[in-house]
Amino acid sequence: MHIVSLAGGIGGARFLRGLRATAPDAQITVIGNTGDDITLFGLRVCPDLDTVMYTLGGGIDEEQGWGRAKESHAVKEELAAYGVEPQWFGLGDRDFATHIVRSQMLEAGYSLSQITEALCARWQPGVRLLPMSDERCETHVVISDERGRRAIHFQEWWVRLRASIPAESIALVGVETAKPAPGVLEAIAEADVVILPPSNPVVSIGTILQVPGIRDALLAKTVVGVSPIIGGAPVRGMADACLTAIGVETSAQAVLDLYGAELIDGWLVAEEDSGVTLDGVTVAARPLIMHDADATADIARAALDLALELAR
Amino acid sequence: MHIVSLAGGIGGARFLRGLRATAPDAQITVIGNTGDDITLFGLRVCPDLDTVMYTLGGGIDEEQGWGRAKESHAVKEELAAYGVEPQWFGLGDRDFATHIVRSQMLEAGYSLSQITEALCARWQPGVRLLPMSDERCETHVVISDERGRRAIHFQEWWVRLRASIPAESIALVGVETAKPAPGVLEAIAEADVVILPPSNPVVSIGTILQVPGIRDALLAKTVVGVSPIIGGAPVRGMADACLTAIGVETSAQAVLDLYGAELIDGWLVAEEDSGVTLDGVTVAARPLIMHDADATADIARAALDLALELAR
Repeated sequence: MHIVSLAGGIGGARFLRGLRATAPDAQITVIGNTGDDITLFGLRVCPDLDTVMYTLGGGIDEEQGWGRAKESHAVKEELAAYGVEPQWFGLGDRDFATHIVRSQMLEAGYSLSQITEALCARWQPGVRLLPMSDERCETHVVISDERGRRAIHFQEWWVRLRASIPAESIALVGVETAKPAPGVLEAIAEADVVILPPSNPVVSIGTILQVPGIRDALLAKTVVGVSPIIGGAPVRGMADACLTAIGVETSAQAVLDLYGAELIDGWLVAEEDSGVTLDGVTVAARPLIMHDADATADIARAALDLALELAR
Repeated sequence: MHIVSLAGGIGGARFLRGLRATAPDAQITVIGNTGDDITLFGLRVCPDLDTVMYTLGGGIDEEQGWGRAKESHAVKEELAAYGVEPQWFGLGDRDFATHIVRSQMLEAGYSLSQITEALCARWQPGVRLLPMSDERCETHVVISDERGRRAIHFQEWWVRLRASIPAESIALVGVETAKPAPGVLEAIAEADVVILPPSNPVVSIGTILQVPGIRDALLAKTVVGVSPIIGGAPVRGMADACLTAIGVETSAQAVLDLYGAELIDGWLVAEEDSGVTLDGVTVAARPLIMHDADATADIARAALDLALELAR
């Protein structure tokens, strides 16, 4: 069995760990969001790819959900002592090594997908992790503050401002000319089912779906999504701020409507959202909180079972 | 009073600390060796400039003589876990930050001398530290081993091989087209005296002297050198291996002959080398072991006094 999954960061990575646990013999290809990627201190940082790689590879800081376990911060402290900006992005020493390797390989001419494969050779995540694209396309957010109306990198809005200033719009800069990374369309074509974890529907899944060719390829497939919204609130993170920016309500119904019946075949919602409906979509309600590994595996199993049933 | 000094790494940096202590009101310009510079993991590393900067700025690992005090090695361990080479060069986490800042500024178009000034704004070494050149010129060493006769970077010979394989020749690649960094020739022109610390006469001082224009500018000046060889052995390091490579005996006399009477006006030797002579050079013998800060300041004072006397 070949499963394709799209993923953002923390929530997606945890869900994928459950999916791998519940389907240990399946071949799982993960198409990772790279819209959050950012160049810091001259180094290329891919937060979502790394969160998936570290989480599935056993190197994640479990409590925090991102970054490396047993992390130290000497490099960051020293950069601050030199007065180098930005100081709001929390890179740890172990994590820095990943970005150093990636940046060196980019400079040497390797593609992001080749580099991701090389990094995964160490981490052995048990899935095939592909960036959505080898081309650089970054999410930018338009805000208005005392400096006027301006576009800032998604990470500045998300990490520095904690989304405290409303996003007037969100744009994936460079996506028009981006191509899916090698293997992405092939994996979708070969997939028996496609699972969308409860990742951010705007800046994670939504970003991947914007890469020309990916959404179209998914239309031919059985796609089951797990709602990232439970009872009107995001499962985690600040998805509401992103949904508001694109004029979408923070509800399991609204996210399903956003994805659309053309794309989605099955939709898992929490029990309190059991009233959600959309013509042509099979909606199933069940506990969706990823309390622990077992609960997460159960959710992944439910999504997979629904997908396999719908694919029959 | 304006003093110009040429310097390599550990020995030069310690000597400069003595010079600064003994002449607190003097303006000291240090022309640092960059022939040891190397690009590692895509980052530009300038070992000698950093050793001078950290030593005079209070950040050096005193025991080791190079690298940062209270250092950790998470980045290096992680790079090794990724299987990235080389693993023989000991970069610590705090030190990495310096190379990250430098590399980012180089990428942004700043020159090495501008970057060195920016880094020194933090460290406040109490001297003006200039790289010998903004152009990249690196010391390479020709060796013969089981892989045949080949040129390797100086650091590979010095750090990985600990100079255990004889150098057949030593070349400063790129020096023909290198120019002294901005301020170097001006500082020499303005200098009242020039002091050569007991740095390596081949790959530190000798390298700086090869940059077109520097040696010529020094000929017009009163130059006093401190012998790096005491009783036939290097004060520290493996200067003998470098001298042998260029066919020069490891002795205070041979190093003086190598520098030549055209360049050198005064030469400080250890008491056991008091027989050293060269026409046109004033030789003075005195204890030259840099036991501690006081002993080092005494040596620097002796060199400075001799220079001032000869300059009169």
